[in-house]
Amino acid sequence: MEPVSVAVSAVLPAGGSGERLGGATPKQFCGLQGRPLVSYAVRAMERVSWISDIIVVVSPENIETMKSIIEKYGHKRVTVVKGGVTRHRSIFNGLKVFAENQSSNRLLQKPEVVIIHDAVRPFVEEDILLKVVTAAKEHGAAGAIRPLVSTVIASGEDGCLDHSLERARYRASEMPQAFLFDIIYQAYQQCTDHDLDYGTECLHLALKYCKTNAKLVEGTADLWKVTYKRDLYAAESIIKDNLSQQICIITDLKEAVAQVGFLLHESLKSQVKVEAISISLSKNDSHLQNIFSGECYNFLCINDKEYATEEIQQLVDMLEKSNIPLLYPIVLILVHLSISENIFFSIELEELTKIKKFAREVKKKNILVYGLLIQCKHW
Amino acid sequence: MEPVSVAVSAVLPAGGSGERLGGATPKQFCGLQGRPLVSYAVRAMERVSWISDIIVVVSPENIETMKSIIEKYGHKRVTVVKGGVTRHRSIFNGLKVFAENQSSNRLLQKPEVVIIHDAVRPFVEEDILLKVVTAAKEHGAAGAIRPLVSTVIASGEDGCLDHSLERARYRASEMPQAFLFDIIYQAYQQCTDHDLDYGTECLHLALKYCKTNAKLVEGTADLWKVTYKRDLYAAESIIKDNLSQQICIITDLKEAVAQVGFLLHESLKSQVKVEAISISLSKNDSHLQNIFSGECYNFLCINDKEYATEEIQQLVDMLEKSNIPLLYPIVLILVHLSISENIFFSIELEELTKIKKFAREVKKKNILVYGLLIQCKHW
Repeated sequence: MEPVSVAVSAVLPAGGSGERLGGATPKQFCGLQGRPLVSYAVRAMERVSWISDIIVVVSPENIETMKSIIEKYGHKRVTVVKGGVTRHRSIFNGLKVFAENQSSNRLLQKPEVVIIHDAVRPFVEEDILLKVVTAAKEHGAAGAIRPLVSTVIASGEDGCLDHSLERARYRASEMPQAFLFDIIYQAYQQCTDHDLDYGTECLHLALKYCKTNAKLVEGTADLWKVTYKRDLYAAESIIKDNLSQQICIITDLKEAVAQVGFLLHESLKSQVKVEAISISLSKNDSHLQNIFSGECYNFLCINDKEYATEEIQQLVDMLEKSNIPLLYPIVLILVHLSISENIFFSIELEELTKIKKFAREVKKKNILVYGLLIQCKHW
Repeated sequence: MEPVSVAVSAVLPAGGSGERLGGATPKQFCGLQGRPLVSYAVRAMERVSWISDIIVVVSPENIETMKSIIEKYGHKRVTVVKGGVTRHRSIFNGLKVFAENQSSNRLLQKPEVVIIHDAVRPFVEEDILLKVVTAAKEHGAAGAIRPLVSTVIASGEDGCLDHSLERARYRASEMPQAFLFDIIYQAYQQCTDHDLDYGTECLHLALKYCKTNAKLVEGTADLWKVTYKRDLYAAESIIKDNLSQQICIITDLKEAVAQVGFLLHESLKSQVKVEAISISLSKNDSHLQNIFSGECYNFLCINDKEYATEEIQQLVDMLEKSNIPLLYPIVLILVHLSISENIFFSIELEELTKIKKFAREVKKKNILVYGLLIQCKHW
């Protein structure tokens, strides 16, 4: 990824009422795997290191909800701003934080380029953000576009077809968009009430008031906007899919156990991305730290000791410190290979009871622990 | 629902390659709960009694696949037709079956009105089909429309924004559409190669060649087209949701058991649609037949006898005869209330073994049987 040489901040309008969704909760606050949609969109911005401030604009009645979401999921660099009654008014309020001293919010450092993105488009990647920011720096404005899925038609006053548009000539305007801050801010300052109340397209304002023809950037399919209930279903499935892309197999240093890890790696690698490492868990391992900072949410920990309390606790502490479990549930499977022949059933039951108690504890931290005892007669 | 007084048939183009989905299998053949998408769309047409023939147009290499789908899922009134290289050519081929003698297909009775629908829009309801057919009879052509989700823009030759359309003035053209057969067939006969190769909109052809301004009918959100992988996820979740809307509780006539059924009904009815009936399963009950012909896919059968073999077999036979399990998996939970105090654990285990064997058998028929033994000391 190229370094970004301009100061960039982002505004996320999240004030919609979600009437198309057909539920009481506005869609940006609907839970996906228990976590509100808006938190996924904030996270998508937050993980991009070159975005300085993230302004989330919400309707007055949701300001406290939004603040508690930021607190709960540990979001950083986020400022909550009170929205207006329409989308354009909300975005304008968000931009004002960089330009006007206001009683409710402190004045933030004005960025050269501002990204505008929707709270209900949770899957935006750094790549497209970089593309629109780079294009905005050059052209003054830029926006992601997608091919039209349906033909667009104009209806006459009688409710009959007037004409249909040639699909290939038109595009759907999506988010993210990016602007030189001064251009979009000036455009909003010149807007009429009619623009602010009925308009929906920021690129249009830049063109109308600043004669800036936005550069259009082809986006990927994952830019889509959660609009209907079916979109929530789809988003939830995509998140589940993403969470199960990778597994990390951790074994201790004993050869026999490491060998099991190796064999498991071999048999899983055609279906899922696998990392297999043999380490002493009680030492702070930098390789493990790297995995924690990646996109891995599934851990399989194999040992041949009776319930390795200390090591497992160590692992859970490291996971907790990584902050991943704040955002996504972590699955941790503890496999105990029992290779001694003269172990009693009762001892294993006792061990299971211990693991159950431990699992109840760490579940509160969003880490789901499962225990598996495997008794092998012939090692 | 008003009776339909015209002869109606339907054409379902299903020849797309699904390149936007990003998989090897064209999306219409992707499995949702194991069953191909196209089968859901066919079923949506088939359950409408006033649609005479359903023409499914598929690309030459998928003709055998489509025929085996029709066979496997017991679809009726369906004719498979070889498609062309574009959407319009495929639809034209589908229409020819009603107008021209062809070697490959027998000539079908020409309908007054023909519906054109997509194989990848599985959730179309009878209501909207009736609306477009009625409007087509009056206006010559009609099509379902939806509000635009995104603003539509035109790009200039430099890849920059030329202008954006006022969202409120335009609509997305969706399916189903309906036409007086003679109008759409004449339009296709006059089409140029350019129309047939690059056009996408049937309403446009009716306007261009027959001066027919189609009536536009507001459709519901469930008309959407499965286009991307996320749409498959959404469709699968909607189907699962639909399957779990209703449960039927069946008890025998004994008062104590019927009472359990009643209490269960009371505690479930706020969450799901519940039918509770007390019958003798060995008699052919018309009320039960009605439930089988409805939208119920979940059955809970409570008895206090040791494994009521004959009755359960009877129920499974009735379900099988209803043909529901061809299309959707049926869940059948057998609850055995054991109210005697002196039953041995071993007898119950034996019963469980029997149920397991039975479940394995009927799973082949798409009926998923689960057994639950409840031992109550104090009845």
